[in-house]
Amino acid sequence: MSIANMIEQMAEEAKKASRQLRRIERPQKDAALESMAARLMDRQAEIIKENQRDLNAAKEAGLSAAMIDRLTLNEKVIREMAEGLREVATLPDPVGQVTGMWVRPNGLQVGRVRIPLGVIGFIYESRPNVTVDAAALCLKSGNAVILKGGSEAIHSNLILAKLLAEALIETGLPAKAVQVVPTTDREAVKIMIGLDNYLDVIIPRGGEGLIRFVAEHSRVPVLKHYKGVCHIFVDESADLETALNVCFNAKVQRPGVCNAMETLLVHERIAPEFLPAMAERFREAGVEIRGCTKTIELVPEAKPAGEEDWPAEFLDLILAVKVVPGMQEALDHIERYGSNHTEAIITRDYQNARSFLAAVDSSVVLVNASTRFNDGNQLGLGAEIGINTSKLHAFGPMGLEELTTTKFIVYGQGQIRI
Amino acid sequence: MSIANMIEQMAEEAKKASRQLRRIERPQKDAALESMAARLMDRQAEIIKENQRDLNAAKEAGLSAAMIDRLTLNEKVIREMAEGLREVATLPDPVGQVTGMWVRPNGLQVGRVRIPLGVIGFIYESRPNVTVDAAALCLKSGNAVILKGGSEAIHSNLILAKLLAEALIETGLPAKAVQVVPTTDREAVKIMIGLDNYLDVIIPRGGEGLIRFVAEHSRVPVLKHYKGVCHIFVDESADLETALNVCFNAKVQRPGVCNAMETLLVHERIAPEFLPAMAERFREAGVEIRGCTKTIELVPEAKPAGEEDWPAEFLDLILAVKVVPGMQEALDHIERYGSNHTEAIITRDYQNARSFLAAVDSSVVLVNASTRFNDGNQLGLGAEIGINTSKLHAFGPMGLEELTTTKFIVYGQGQIRI
Repeated sequence: MSIANMIEQMAEEAKKASRQLRRIERPQKDAALESMAARLMDRQAEIIKENQRDLNAAKEAGLSAAMIDRLTLNEKVIREMAEGLREVATLPDPVGQVTGMWVRPNGLQVGRVRIPLGVIGFIYESRPNVTVDAAALCLKSGNAVILKGGSEAIHSNLILAKLLAEALIETGLPAKAVQVVPTTDREAVKIMIGLDNYLDVIIPRGGEGLIRFVAEHSRVPVLKHYKGVCHIFVDESADLETALNVCFNAKVQRPGVCNAMETLLVHERIAPEFLPAMAERFREAGVEIRGCTKTIELVPEAKPAGEEDWPAEFLDLILAVKVVPGMQEALDHIERYGSNHTEAIITRDYQNARSFLAAVDSSVVLVNASTRFNDGNQLGLGAEIGINTSKLHAFGPMGLEELTTTKFIVYGQGQIRI
Repeated sequence: MSIANMIEQMAEEAKKASRQLRRIERPQKDAALESMAARLMDRQAEIIKENQRDLNAAKEAGLSAAMIDRLTLNEKVIREMAEGLREVATLPDPVGQVTGMWVRPNGLQVGRVRIPLGVIGFIYESRPNVTVDAAALCLKSGNAVILKGGSEAIHSNLILAKLLAEALIETGLPAKAVQVVPTTDREAVKIMIGLDNYLDVIIPRGGEGLIRFVAEHSRVPVLKHYKGVCHIFVDESADLETALNVCFNAKVQRPGVCNAMETLLVHERIAPEFLPAMAERFREAGVEIRGCTKTIELVPEAKPAGEEDWPAEFLDLILAVKVVPGMQEALDHIERYGSNHTEAIITRDYQNARSFLAAVDSSVVLVNASTRFNDGNQLGLGAEIGINTSKLHAFGPMGLEELTTTKFIVYGQGQIRI
């Protein structure tokens, strides 16, 4: 069978499964999640054995130590995956929630009720634990999912898929609700994103190259973000200690992720006091600063920033720093170079806090808190399947509710349109 | 200037305007809508004169009387457009509404607030009054809009755009918030749907050909429906009078629209009583029936339905009729041939009503009411820019709220991620 035929058949089966899943109630879905968790714990040896095949191939291919670390499934990672499944089981089921109901003058009772999206295509790179996380979120929200992972994790993903399918069957759910594409051929991605008659949405997660490819070629709607160029603006009135702590956390706590700070904007009145102290803390953590002329005057060891540094997502211990004459210039800079992902202001000024929250067109806008909080768990969504910086459907982190839509239900008593 | 350059410049200006519009408060938007309404009433002569140019061209091109009727702007239509503008002014402004706010264990106060989508590309055919309706909804929801109407309405659309822009300027709003593409070249559509760096969403309205073209080629997310193949299922327990009235209304009241009934499914136990009576009412209204074998037994004048009739959107006084052994077969038929648009059940059975509402995967599902109620005004959204049958963003009729998205706002006091 050709790859095209195989993928189309998977999609057709996913659609059939989604039709059943739509009407499954919470207890059965939670039972499946619990069964998946138990199975991962019981069958660790098998998982580790299959993962070892991926690790051997990765070592042969000369992948970096960091990549191999991300690929590794050991007892600790497997326990975390099982805990993740159990956590999703404890979350409320969004399906069937009535988000509003009202009565029209003619007596029609009109309501909106949450329903699953249908079939989700999830395309991602490395980290095999994402396979389990994504499957759990899709299942709990009543969606069927087709998972296309990275080629380096193929054996790990296939054994995980096998165990998940066993749990589905055991608990009376359609086995095709969760499917892993059993090939490393990139052709599979091209085929998935053309199947708009079966798939309702594509969620790509990975490098900018993968995401741009999917976004440019997909006929299925795509929820995605290309990159996170996150800014913090330290306002004139900022509390110095808050500014130092929040900026340090946003840059250093985990520099390789999309919600880390990439550019620091500093009001010129506070810069002489703030920037040298900030630079000292960054120096100790090994952060390289690339600054504007005024920054370099205050932080002599800083390198001069080039035009390419302002829109850059460094994903590393590198930070672009610019001194600005006021908040308007900070807003203009964010509008020009930002990625609509996450921005924060550090301020003690009530009006500036309000204005910044209103003016910044990003999925998460914070006052006096770290950009690292743009995350479904941290914001209280319970879990997260990804972050969307397109405005459609769900702007920002997407949890269970964001994997649903609403339909209208109407209770009548013979009403006709006049 | 090439068409590509012209459209891109319009898009860039729209984006700039949207940045201003985002922060405009309700009174100013409502004042602009009022000013637009007054201007349409005051400048009727100009509008009618420009419309006459389109009408002359239409007559020369030999357009049908129905097409010419749709194209005509007379005193009555202009008054209705002005009333439409004033109605939108009375609707609540969705922008700035906080749809939820909660506190995290670390003290972060997290909220979701409604914001405009940004720039909307609206691509439509004929009816110049749609130009005014769409402009009003986009403006009220804080969005800039680029309108690409049908070539046969170009002069009408341009004079309307001119008057709307004058009203924007008079009330201190950016003139580029509402722009009409000043060309009939279809190339303009191709260029618009490629501008994903400026446009946030494309809403196409018109024939299936236009919509398929846009959906298949757009890099900007598209909200659309291809067609409405709407079903009514008359259950065994249906009240006969209700079934007759609702089905008659759904087929006959306005057969040329997307929420008219196209296929009638009848439970075999009620068919002998219901179908002959229904056929008699349809006969008087000139409805042609294309039925299954059992239908023809009960309604001898019916023509035999072919396989091509089940997925057909007739948009005319033609109805496909099928007798089914039970609700499950009705649901299967809808799943196979339906368009996820609108379906209704006529029943007196409590459990069947609930099951139908839950099982049918359409944007509006009704019990004992006409499919013709799938309409933003009728369902209480206040107004409607279109109906979306993709699951993403807003499934079903889209009003002002559906032209917005939400962003997260976070009030902190120095919180960092641990």
